[in-house]
Amino acid sequence: MLTEMGKLAKKASLTLANLSAETKSAGLLAVAEALKANTDRILAENKKDVDAFLARGGSSAMVDRLTLTKERICDMADGVLKVNALPDPVGEVLGMTKRPNGLVIGTKRVPLGVIGIIYEARPNVTVDAAVLCLKTANACILRGGSEAICSNSVLVDIMNEALTKAGFPEGSLQLVRDTSRETAKELMRLSDYLDVLIPRGGKGLISAVVENASVPVIETGTGNCHIYIEKTADTVMARDILVNAKTSRPSVCNAAESLLIDACIAEATLPMLAEALRPFSVEIRGCEKTCEILPEAKKASDEDFYTEYNDYILSVKVVDGLTEAISHINEHGTGHSEAIVTSDYAAANRFLDEIDAAAVYVNASTRFTDGNEFGYGAEIGISTQKLHARGPMGLTALTSTKHIIYGNGQIR
Amino acid sequence: MLTEMGKLAKKASLTLANLSAETKSAGLLAVAEALKANTDRILAENKKDVDAFLARGGSSAMVDRLTLTKERICDMADGVLKVNALPDPVGEVLGMTKRPNGLVIGTKRVPLGVIGIIYEARPNVTVDAAVLCLKTANACILRGGSEAICSNSVLVDIMNEALTKAGFPEGSLQLVRDTSRETAKELMRLSDYLDVLIPRGGKGLISAVVENASVPVIETGTGNCHIYIEKTADTVMARDILVNAKTSRPSVCNAAESLLIDACIAEATLPMLAEALRPFSVEIRGCEKTCEILPEAKKASDEDFYTEYNDYILSVKVVDGLTEAISHINEHGTGHSEAIVTSDYAAANRFLDEIDAAAVYVNASTRFTDGNEFGYGAEIGISTQKLHARGPMGLTALTSTKHIIYGNGQIR
Repeated sequence: MLTEMGKLAKKASLTLANLSAETKSAGLLAVAEALKANTDRILAENKKDVDAFLARGGSSAMVDRLTLTKERICDMADGVLKVNALPDPVGEVLGMTKRPNGLVIGTKRVPLGVIGIIYEARPNVTVDAAVLCLKTANACILRGGSEAICSNSVLVDIMNEALTKAGFPEGSLQLVRDTSRETAKELMRLSDYLDVLIPRGGKGLISAVVENASVPVIETGTGNCHIYIEKTADTVMARDILVNAKTSRPSVCNAAESLLIDACIAEATLPMLAEALRPFSVEIRGCEKTCEILPEAKKASDEDFYTEYNDYILSVKVVDGLTEAISHINEHGTGHSEAIVTSDYAAANRFLDEIDAAAVYVNASTRFTDGNEFGYGAEIGISTQKLHARGPMGLTALTSTKHIIYGNGQIR
Repeated sequence: MLTEMGKLAKKASLTLANLSAETKSAGLLAVAEALKANTDRILAENKKDVDAFLARGGSSAMVDRLTLTKERICDMADGVLKVNALPDPVGEVLGMTKRPNGLVIGTKRVPLGVIGIIYEARPNVTVDAAVLCLKTANACILRGGSEAICSNSVLVDIMNEALTKAGFPEGSLQLVRDTSRETAKELMRLSDYLDVLIPRGGKGLISAVVENASVPVIETGTGNCHIYIEKTADTVMARDILVNAKTSRPSVCNAAESLLIDACIAEATLPMLAEALRPFSVEIRGCEKTCEILPEAKKASDEDFYTEYNDYILSVKVVDGLTEAISHINEHGTGHSEAIVTSDYAAANRFLDEIDAAAVYVNASTRFTDGNEFGYGAEIGISTQKLHARGPMGLTALTSTKHIIYGNGQIR
């Protein structure tokens, strides 16, 4: 079954790649309108998902992620308009050189082709992901979770009605409606038709995709992010950054999970930091020295320093200085976002140079690692791999290039 | 065993990333000198490989690929000097923006980290690949074929002696000396330590890697390249391009495998083209119309049009015009290199826009798809995938980026 979807998507992608800007924009505007106009239809289908989920005893946090409201549908439609208004990276020629033999070689930004997205329960991802792919003229095959199948189906149907009227080719947007594990695996192996597969979701999903895919994957997600307070840090700034990075939204990947602090300021500073975290009931799991300074701290295991809690828990380690901090982070981090708080010029530069991560911060919260915060206007995910895209992925991460070569009879 | 190599490489990569330009250059110069100085030692080890290969009844073409000579070693050393002289892409900041909140966000080119390369018999790849990786400050783990194990081992030993003296960290360059299938598979699954895996070799090797790897892969290689002669083509130019693309080096991936020609000029032009190919004994496998026009043509099967011959064979199809040509190529090509010969402005532009390939040519031979010909100075392979790099991969294809963020206390 997926082979047929793949063929159709591949065919659509060739037409999409040369669709006019007007048609693309008309399609996205129509999608936004259709979502608003069909609010009741969407809510009715979403209710089926929510009821079924509650009947199976689903947790209330998950129910919240699954539930759509009039306001959330309105937000989704506004998101479509926002993406539509962004500049279109496709077609840009990045440079053109003339070779000694007279060949003129240009590099032109083109769509990736067919993008597969595997994701979990949130139905808004269906609209987000589809629109980002279509804006960049990619065909897409979505495979959401079984919990949201009614919501995802109606959203894709509504979007397709709008897109077809606007002149998008059949197969531009498809949803895998059989949500068995088999179809997920099949999608991961659809390398004849898919140019890239992007998993969005928890660690389990992402490692299953990395493990099983033959399609090129862009890994997203996990962030074991550190705040390192260097001995020359402004401690008030350090406190504010730590509190923000840990508590403003602990469930997301750019939240801080671990605090490192220089030994010479630990005794004076840790109690003040702990106090600032207390209103948020942050559990502290510390190294031996931390536990000596903070009586409320629990003893951290080795495993703690490798853990992305996604919760109100913070591991804390007292370090000897910059060198130990850098090597601890490069060993324990996931290469997502890492921050130093310092007023020392050389320390800031060494941290920026030597930390191996997608985003390296001096004197700012790790929470800024986000497509909107970076000024990309939209985000399909945050890449934690080094191939193709690293860090927040905006529209250009959904493009490739091709070489266009103008000759006048050159042979080699 | 490979886990230990992976750990060592990962550790080395962190030091390498911040090695000074002087040290890097000194290391590469020392490698070039050491290769020349140790010519006899290399030849002696290479002889073991060649003798063993002949004893097993190896083909003479393969023996040629395996054999090193004084001249070939000299060429390898010169290649190292050439790479050393290229500009170093690492450290370049691609752009820096200031966000409304005062954060300054830059994108800096950094090494990929640890690169794995799996390749077949040619021992010169050992030097080529190592030097391209090291120039871009990547640690590398090489895994060559069993036929060249003595040659590869001595080359890596000699390079490592030179690199160590120059101050490169241990683990910068490693060779998997156990050439069993198991180690190849283990390397493909070493995702905790490898940032990318590049297979260089035949179709079998590449598809085994794509099939089995959990490490991100850059697919290289296969090219079913077309020359399309549009009705307005200068037929003498078309003939020269066809002969060059088919016969100048038929075994390589940018050689033409298939000719498409417009129906209205086929009868007048095909005999002249066939005559130009005759001195090279090119076997023609044609569609029905081709066979009517050229009595010497064999009947092509459907399969022929999907085949990369890498030999003096050419499939030929008469097409109705540009639209059929484009759709035939997008269906049968491998997305490598495709050329149109035309004097029509609109046809040239439509071909450039609508053909989905790494390199799309107007009025030039497909043989130019090559890092040196594109002006990259060196090449680690030709990517036929759309992720990360497409077409010839020079030094920048061996880099990633990281975001460097300068703040003054920003929280979100």
